[in-house]
Amino acid sequence: MKINGTYYRTIWCEEDQGHVSIIDQTRLPFAFKIATLTCLEDARDAIRDMLVRGAPLVGATAAYGMALAMRDDPSHEHLELAADLLFAARPTAVNLAWALERQKSALVNAEPAERSALAYQVAAEICDEDVALCESIGEHGLTLIEAMAERKPGETIHILTHCNAGWLATVDWGTALSPIYKAFDTGIPVHVWVDETRPRNQGAYLSAYELGQHGVPHTVIVDNVGGHLMQHGLVDMCLVGTDRTTRTGDVCNKIGTYLKALAAHDNQVPFYVCAPSPSIDLTLADGLREIPIEQRAREEVSHITGLDAQGNLTHVEILPTHSGVRNDAFDVTPSRYVTALVTEKGVIEANEAAIQAAFME
Amino acid sequence: MKINGTYYRTIWCEEDQGHVSIIDQTRLPFAFKIATLTCLEDARDAIRDMLVRGAPLVGATAAYGMALAMRDDPSHEHLELAADLLFAARPTAVNLAWALERQKSALVNAEPAERSALAYQVAAEICDEDVALCESIGEHGLTLIEAMAERKPGETIHILTHCNAGWLATVDWGTALSPIYKAFDTGIPVHVWVDETRPRNQGAYLSAYELGQHGVPHTVIVDNVGGHLMQHGLVDMCLVGTDRTTRTGDVCNKIGTYLKALAAHDNQVPFYVCAPSPSIDLTLADGLREIPIEQRAREEVSHITGLDAQGNLTHVEILPTHSGVRNDAFDVTPSRYVTALVTEKGVIEANEAAIQAAFME
Repeated sequence: MKINGTYYRTIWCEEDQGHVSIIDQTRLPFAFKIATLTCLEDARDAIRDMLVRGAPLVGATAAYGMALAMRDDPSHEHLELAADLLFAARPTAVNLAWALERQKSALVNAEPAERSALAYQVAAEICDEDVALCESIGEHGLTLIEAMAERKPGETIHILTHCNAGWLATVDWGTALSPIYKAFDTGIPVHVWVDETRPRNQGAYLSAYELGQHGVPHTVIVDNVGGHLMQHGLVDMCLVGTDRTTRTGDVCNKIGTYLKALAAHDNQVPFYVCAPSPSIDLTLADGLREIPIEQRAREEVSHITGLDAQGNLTHVEILPTHSGVRNDAFDVTPSRYVTALVTEKGVIEANEAAIQAAFME
Repeated sequence: MKINGTYYRTIWCEEDQGHVSIIDQTRLPFAFKIATLTCLEDARDAIRDMLVRGAPLVGATAAYGMALAMRDDPSHEHLELAADLLFAARPTAVNLAWALERQKSALVNAEPAERSALAYQVAAEICDEDVALCESIGEHGLTLIEAMAERKPGETIHILTHCNAGWLATVDWGTALSPIYKAFDTGIPVHVWVDETRPRNQGAYLSAYELGQHGVPHTVIVDNVGGHLMQHGLVDMCLVGTDRTTRTGDVCNKIGTYLKALAAHDNQVPFYVCAPSPSIDLTLADGLREIPIEQRAREEVSHITGLDAQGNLTHVEILPTHSGVRNDAFDVTPSRYVTALVTEKGVIEANEAAIQAAFME
């Protein structure tokens, strides 16, 4: 996708010295900065300090972290150390473990002298595969937007999204925003309602930023507004991402997704979840009972960062100091409220039979 | 209710010179300041600049503004001028117009020499009536909490509220929080989930502050969390306020109320709306079609005020500058999602027959 008119991925390898560049997402939307990772520790810090976030992008960064490590020291000891160091950066991320495992299994039986080149190659493959997967979700989701556009010829299609399941969470395209970029590029008039997505405001900070940079018309709303818009016929469909999907079609996504699914159901608005196959966990049958929900820090709710009148990034406290906070990061939307899953294999129903047919062969 | 252990109303008359004191709510929860209104223009400014807010409190402040005006100049011309000036401060507030009308009809036929004393008396009556009304809502709401406590002996009753329908919005007690104060004072173990209530954060800024000052256990959550808590059995009931209620029981309240009502319905959590009779508009039958929703400024969403690291109140920007905003202030919860209305006349069903029986005699 584009920033200031130039095409970027969220991570790429500099040809000359094997350095890896990333977009520093901690400063968005207030500043666009590229950070360069020159060693293993840089990659670890970028993951830990959330310069990169989003499961696919974290996996890609870890893969390049292994490449940087092998360039500096391709010994077996360093291979193990690098994998452990990167894994500890954000231990709960599924894609992180997966990317490290893939690198290890590719590298462990290679000659040390070949490991550096091989690790860069595997990292590039992981990135390219993610781009292809996201683009495929975009193509399948596009058919849903096209069908809606045929029912409302000439009219703008209004799509509500929650959090950031855009290209900044992946290597390119994104998941929930991928069909929107495809529709926009195809010339379908789309407009996106962007949920602010408290407490980390990834909707307002990241989705609004990336949609704006690509030129897609959008409007930011606080998380309280979406249901009201649906009651008044101002939302044609919802498109959201998923962190984990059960084999029965329950969807675990950013906190607040469930409330929008309820409103969509109450107002007959289609609620689509863009679910790349790595998000589907076939071992899970009941999302509400089986998926543990991460509890995050008080400070994400009690403080917020923005630009002060002088343009300085400033951290301010926005709660009474004596008040406690509970900060659940995700919720589960039961499959009965999910109109369909948009996967890289096509649009499928959110139930066990359809998921089994698509992913269990 | 109490602040720092001392009993306050949100507005009171200083006995010596007829000055009127208010709690400056623009600085809460960061600072507790009392502002003194010494003339008509002070009262107008306090309403316009939202040092006072909440329909009942705005009405009470306008009534005292008329008293301050009559003390300075009890002429008929000044009476009319004062009413016009105060009305223009926040022209859409129903209680404001009602309080001014009540003062005018009391004062217009009185001798100028009697007007000042009479105006102070009417203002005091308006305040005392509001306190009695809110306390009555508290007593009736208490029966609902008591009934819940009987079903869960010894266990904490978890109550979710949205926005601030507390004593800071009225003269004392509040509406939705009044039953909670009554229950707490009675010794029932209560705990309140306080929705942050973006974009103006009145839940986090005001409800959390006043509950904390009274010693009521509470936890602030972002607006996205409530549904998830209900899915996991962590909410026993919802208690919210209402700005306007139709004769059919539809409830217009702060934006986001509808989403919580949907979640309550989906999880069989009782959803009670505390509706003082002035909020019930018998001319309205269909809340979604007939109640116009105020659109407010972009800046409420794009900027936020908090304390910086040095403890200074600081206004920061939290949106990409190019992104548009839609800021609907209220939404409508259809009566089918309202378990009951808690009024000063008792707990009644949210339907036309019950409302007619209670309020149309």
